[in-house]
Amino acid sequence: MEIRKATKADHEAIWAITKQVIASCESFVFAPDTSRERMLAFWCNRKKHVFVALVNERVVGTFYISDNQPGLGAHVANAGYMTDPSFEGKGVGSEMGLFSLEEARRLGYKSMQFNIVLKSNERAVKLWQRLGFKIVGEVPDVFNHPTKGLINSYIMWQKL
Amino acid sequence: MEIRKATKADHEAIWAITKQVIASCESFVFAPDTSRERMLAFWCNRKKHVFVALVNERVVGTFYISDNQPGLGAHVANAGYMTDPSFEGKGVGSEMGLFSLEEARRLGYKSMQFNIVLKSNERAVKLWQRLGFKIVGEVPDVFNHPTKGLINSYIMWQKL
Repeated sequence: MEIRKATKADHEAIWAITKQVIASCESFVFAPDTSRERMLAFWCNRKKHVFVALVNERVVGTFYISDNQPGLGAHVANAGYMTDPSFEGKGVGSEMGLFSLEEARRLGYKSMQFNIVLKSNERAVKLWQRLGFKIVGEVPDVFNHPTKGLINSYIMWQKL
Repeated sequence: MEIRKATKADHEAIWAITKQVIASCESFVFAPDTSRERMLAFWCNRKKHVFVALVNERVVGTFYISDNQPGLGAHVANAGYMTDPSFEGKGVGSEMGLFSLEEARRLGYKSMQFNIVLKSNERAVKLWQRLGFKIVGEVPDVFNHPTKGLINSYIMWQKL
């Protein structure tokens, strides 16, 4: 798997993945009908370091690294990850996670924090724990799933 | 004390309070040298419900209520509060807090979440606990204080 910085030429592939991921309502808070423009403005804005993961030159995943907070909180990295659903369970998330931790260190961040990891997304929770993240908080009823109702989420964190 | 919606005419007073509050580095992540433009763009943007608290027609505090997350997380309110330092300890924060909880309920939010309450800001932590908030998480080293170093913060939450 190759991981490299995303360019504008990757936007179509990023949107194709995003559209499927938000349609599932299993991980991201963005509503399933969020527009391409809004989603790309969030994912690919200039405050973020955006990457794509490729298998045989096909974009199969994307992630970003950004400041979790401005100013006195800007030493903490935040990150978001999406994998093409047809490539799930093949280690794409794991490789993106490892790469992002290394890259965040290189960028000078002191820790990495995830603000919403759905408790119901057990595969993600286990993956992040395996990569060194700790659950440092649990917020009730944070995510309003269209059929499952309100779901708790974890805050996950690790020192870099 | 009167609490009402902020208007553009209140921006100067809001900035005067903000400038002092961020200079103290005791509660907000914004760096002490954050510009007026940046701060007002954050505090008074059109995604937020912004209020001012007045004593004898003088603005002594301000707060906002907004969605804590987009889409499937938009039923959770976030809020931020600032009190003129010369009016601290006079119940301004408490009245703003009570008002904001009532207003958030009225706006249809199901819960309220604070993402960064500095552990060192004991007065704030106690105030929010008194108003019904629970500590649901503690994130290490979130805040880089210019002299005290890295400080933990709480995530606080309550059902509305």
